Amino acid sequence: MLIKMKNLTDGDISSVVEYVTINGCEAKLFKNEDNAAISVLGRGREQKLNLSELSKLPGVDKIYTKDYFLTSVNYKKTKSVFKVGDVTFGDGSLVVMAGPCAIESYEQTDAIGKALSSMGIKVMRGGAFKPRTSAYSFQGLGVDGLKIGREVADKYGMLFVTELTDSRYLSDFIEYVDIIQVGARNSQNFELLKDLGTCGKPILLKQGMSDNLDTWLSAAEYIYSRGNDRIILCERGISGADNKYYRNVMDINALLAMKQLTHLPLCMDPSHGSGRRDFIEPLSCMGVIANVDALLIEVHNCPECALCDGAQSLHLEEFQHLLNSLSIYQNARQKVRY
Amino acid sequence: MLIKMKNLTDGDISSVVEYVTINGCEAKLFKNEDNAAISVLGRGREQKLNLSELSKLPGVDKIYTKDYFLTSVNYKKTKSVFKVGDVTFGDGSLVVMAGPCAIESYEQTDAIGKALSSMGIKVMRGGAFKPRTSAYSFQGLGVDGLKIGREVADKYGMLFVTELTDSRYLSDFIEYVDIIQVGARNSQNFELLKDLGTCGKPILLKQGMSDNLDTWLSAAEYIYSRGNDRIILCERGISGADNKYYRNVMDINALLAMKQLTHLPLCMDPSHGSGRRDFIEPLSCMGVIANVDALLIEVHNCPECALCDGAQSLHLEEFQHLLNSLSIYQNARQKVRY
Amino acid sequence: MLIKMKNLTDGDISSVVEYVTINGCEAKLFKNEDNAAISVLGRGREQKLNLSELSKLPGVDKIYTKDYFLTSVNYKKTKSVFKVGDVTFGDGSLVVMAGPCAIESYEQTDAIGKALSSMGIKVMRGGAFKPRTSAYSFQGLGVDGLKIGREVADKYGMLFVTELTDSRYLSDFIEYVDIIQVGARNSQNFELLKDLGTCGKPILLKQGMSDNLDTWLSAAEYIYSRGNDRIILCERGISGADNKYYRNVMDINALLAMKQLTHLPLCMDPSHGSGRRDFIEPLSCMGVIANVDALLIEVHNCPECALCDGAQSLHLEEFQHLLNSLSIYQNARQKVRY
Amino acid sequence: MLIKMKNLTDGDISSVVEYVTINGCEAKLFKNEDNAAISVLGRGREQKLNLSELSKLPGVDKIYTKDYFLTSVNYKKTKSVFKVGDVTFGDGSLVVMAGPCAIESYEQTDAIGKALSSMGIKVMRGGAFKPRTSAYSFQGLGVDGLKIGREVADKYGMLFVTELTDSRYLSDFIEYVDIIQVGARNSQNFELLKDLGTCGKPILLKQGMSDNLDTWLSAAEYIYSRGNDRIILCERGISGADNKYYRNVMDINALLAMKQLTHLPLCMDPSHGSGRRDFIEPLSCMGVIANVDALLIEVHNCPECALCDGAQSLHLEEFQHLLNSLSIYQNARQKVRY
Repeated sequence: MLIKMKNLTDGDISSVVEYVTINGCEAKLFKNEDNAAISVLGRGREQKLNLSELSKLPGVDKIYTKDYFLTSVNYKKTKSVFKVGDVTFGDGSLVVMAGPCAIESYEQTDAIGKALSSMGIKVMRGGAFKPRTSAYSFQGLGVDGLKIGREVADKYGMLFVTELTDSRYLSDFIEYVDIIQVGARNSQNFELLKDLGTCGKPILLKQGMSDNLDTWLSAAEYIYSRGNDRIILCERGISGADNKYYRNVMDINALLAMKQLTHLPLCMDPSHGSGRRDFIEPLSCMGVIANVDALLIEVHNCPECALCDGAQSLHLEEFQHLLNSLSIYQNARQKVRY
Repeated sequence: MLIKMKNLTDGDISSVVEYVTINGCEAKLFKNEDNAAISVLGRGREQKLNLSELSKLPGVDKIYTKDYFLTSVNYKKTKSVFKVGDVTFGDGSLVVMAGPCAIESYEQTDAIGKALSSMGIKVMRGGAFKPRTSAYSFQGLGVDGLKIGREVADKYGMLFVTELTDSRYLSDFIEYVDIIQVGARNSQNFELLKDLGTCGKPILLKQGMSDNLDTWLSAAEYIYSRGNDRIILCERGISGADNKYYRNVMDINALLAMKQLTHLPLCMDPSHGSGRRDFIEPLSCMGVIANVDALLIEVHNCPECALCDGAQSLHLEEFQHLLNSLSIYQNARQKVRY
Repeated sequence: MLIKMKNLTDGDISSVVEYVTINGCEAKLFKNEDNAAISVLGRGREQKLNLSELSKLPGVDKIYTKDYFLTSVNYKKTKSVFKVGDVTFGDGSLVVMAGPCAIESYEQTDAIGKALSSMGIKVMRGGAFKPRTSAYSFQGLGVDGLKIGREVADKYGMLFVTELTDSRYLSDFIEYVDIIQVGARNSQNFELLKDLGTCGKPILLKQGMSDNLDTWLSAAEYIYSRGNDRIILCERGISGADNKYYRNVMDINALLAMKQLTHLPLCMDPSHGSGRRDFIEPLSCMGVIANVDALLIEVHNCPECALCDGAQSLHLEEFQHLLNSLSIYQNARQKVRY
Repeated sequence: MLIKMKNLTDGDISSVVEYVTINGCEAKLFKNEDNAAISVLGRGREQKLNLSELSKLPGVDKIYTKDYFLTSVNYKKTKSVFKVGDVTFGDGSLVVMAGPCAIESYEQTDAIGKALSSMGIKVMRGGAFKPRTSAYSFQGLGVDGLKIGREVADKYGMLFVTELTDSRYLSDFIEYVDIIQVGARNSQNFELLKDLGTCGKPILLKQGMSDNLDTWLSAAEYIYSRGNDRIILCERGISGADNKYYRNVMDINALLAMKQLTHLPLCMDPSHGSGRRDFIEPLSCMGVIANVDALLIEVHNCPECALCDGAQSLHLEEFQHLLNSLSIYQNARQKVRY
């Protein structure tokens, strides 16, 4: 339950918080210059609150028992900007996160990490827990992979982002990982999302394969309403009319629409958004035009021998080319009058 | 990894099992009158097995590092038949599982359970952990709901099926639940599926919203290959061309196709497969024609006051009508020559 | 433009008709015991009518410049029933229309027609103008095919239904054909639909591949509003999550929903609705449960040598089996209390 | 039928042409430096050719009775470049085609045409025959609209592109129109496509709403194989996961893939590809990155009073802004090393 206040009056807020607390629930206050809202958590006890009584408390505007509010521009009109280490998301700069689909070994990760770092990359990606359609496919190195990622990231002064597939590993992620990714297959794994709401780490939340924009923002609201406001929303393609020539359709309109719907930073994943190595550079450059805050790109020192998704991973030299092209289009964007 | 054998020769099987075990992995043998296959589990160690060496062992036919095999008719040509308590799935009979979308209270559950039982229903459904799009919607009573479901099911001599959304609750489910449901949103939650492979309880696995049939069977294979062969596959509708007049499209073709692809029992969920109360009876009767082994139907003593999905829940009297109609069509099916 | 009247008052209707006629448009009156509405046609002149003036004429309720009305149950609460030759559509009986995908020769058509007729079939299908994805595929025999179809249908006392792909052939269709089919690819070919509105022949209108129900009824409204009220709506499957094991998804929910949205007779095409011969019988039997008014089934005396769509055509003996099964389920339906 | 030759040998080609002609069909030769192929047309007579005999003629490589070839890069490895009046398509330049959704009056068209011309636009769009979902919506001015479009285009020295919805108007289009558009709803209207293959006018062929890339190129092959090689393929968006915030998804991957599949020029329609005015500029700029050859943009002097699709039409000043931005990104693209 979320209680939106009519205004920012401290007294009114206090009464609502008190009411909620007295009734055995936890009240979490969200407040900015425009709005105040109180998220009510109670492991079911919030279901028993008397809505009619609650709605009559002074200052109460609207009680949400469906939909989302905190992640929308209706709650916060200015863009959310936050730092993770030295890296800032949401300030208009473009954060390029890159690395292999899967962490396969220390040597592979070190080679890629070294190269990426020398190209100025500040955030390394690399999967340790891989959700794979087949029970018999490589499932990632697990916690060993997390340790390798951490070690390599530290060695080259980078942040480390990787996907979490189950809450049981959360403590390991808190120890080894800087940004926790939620993949498309877990975008509706609400127990996981709830845990991420209190984990203290920034979250990269991908759009689920059959999520519309409201569903996606509702998933983010699970995290945000529990107190974690460092969420990056990552578009990764939808299924389309053709799956012979490309795996997914990059839904560029979703990125353009989300810019207006939410204050959270937006990321584009052109690797999954196409499934084709040769589409990654043009799609990334289009991301510049869509004003995305971040890119998530699969790069491998040997895509042909990758254990996972080699066909959508860039060679290192292709990635360097992409960075150059990005920079050209970023300069161009400066010249466009808005 | 799965190693399919050329034949059923014990000696060959033993050598493969020995090879796998010596190399630090667990070997699980699957064998019927037609086929033998060895599922290899090793928390990553199976990745390091020497495939070239393995494939040269006597009797080794094919090593799966993608796709699925055990859940398909290629592995087992006869239908899987299994009992849960006194209820048999897969023997040609039709098991009707019914109950409220969510367990809301003891009183509500008892009233529904009593009525269902008096109509001859042997399996009661009812959600305790509800995956809801909005963070602010009713999320179910949790473990309290499991206890209520158990108590009512026991009182009326029924089995209890309910949805599990995270492995952390698995021990509670093992204690209170007879059949564990995996919902559409968790059909690609592979960590959960792995745990269900060794939980000892039968599983009701729904098709995910963007799963095709291969993806769905691959999900079942996660469970089956770890040793749990009591899986019921449940079709619950896909998104279609129209979402104004009905929520989902019942993919009846999927049921017809699955009958030929897998030996596992099949279930139809006409409530989610349409989202409309008035479609449930005709869809259920069509399930008879599709020869499904089970139906999963939402019934409520007061759909209008249900906390969840009331619009797709039958009134008790409508459910009685449905049972009568089912029986008429089941009789008719006896007369059809196949 | 469509002008819905508040009631059936003759004087009000006359004034509107007069107003429309004076302003250079043609007025076509639609009236039943519940409603009266005036369809205004003017090749553009209707655009220039003064809506404000029009809406103030006595008895004018609503002026439609979008959406549909005449084909909906809001216009006509009782089912539309009409005869074509001796065959009645919409009276609760089930009309089975069958025949080859394409008319390939007199001999083939005669052999199939003879067999179908001996099984009691009253309407023969068979394509003469085939819309084919590839420019190089067999496009049908054209007018020669129409003549063959007519001759065979007459020989065995059947009606002949076949697809029209362009208005230029309309006069031939009027001469040789009893029911004119509009295929999924032409469901939005509005020039064709307009012509069919005045052609005097009953129409079998398929749902387009990306039509939702409103779009489909709007297409029917093009025909109906020009004066042709003998329209059968035919569901032929939509694209779904799986296209490996079946070509299309039979959208059975669409049929159930349309029963409530429109007064027009409904048809199911299980051949295109699956693309699989072995699905046709169960889908047809489900059509009985959905209360469809007609079935459109591909049958061939040699599916293996068919020039088109052999994989979804029944052998003659399979079709006889289907008819027997249909009859069993039709009897069962009699026993269901509604 | 299409007969692909093994090489360019004149003698072999002549024998095939002779064989085809003797058997009552028309042979149309397609030849470039890489390939020769003979398109066989015969109004059904080509069905009776003896394929076995044909395939044994010297030089015959492959006989197509399905799929497509001429529109693919397998036939022609270099980009197709052609002029329409003074405007060149396919030479690496970007042709911006703009104008109102519908031609509503001379005054409106003249005002828009004048403004566009003053901004350097060389091709004016404007619908005279409007395919509308509802029978009651504005259907365009028809031939009167064609005349207005022609007059305004001539007055300002522009070309005129507009949509044809039925062959019966083809002679009018040949008289008044420079480029004939085939809309998404007619992309599978094969009778129309055949006529366009011999009409002598360049064609703008939109992707159909449920066309995949093979289906789209097959539609183009209908035109090309009859002798019209001036075809521009226009992407206009597909249906996606969200239809609340935007009408269609711009399938940018389709454009990237088509660049590699076909030698024909490619166009993007950002107006229909989103349905939102504020998305048109960013999408158009992304078209620069995708290297499209043309853009098709809806511009209106008063979108708020447009009779059709105002919400996706740019104001004139917005269009000027778009042109400036395009130019900035085109300059940037020059600097990208390929």
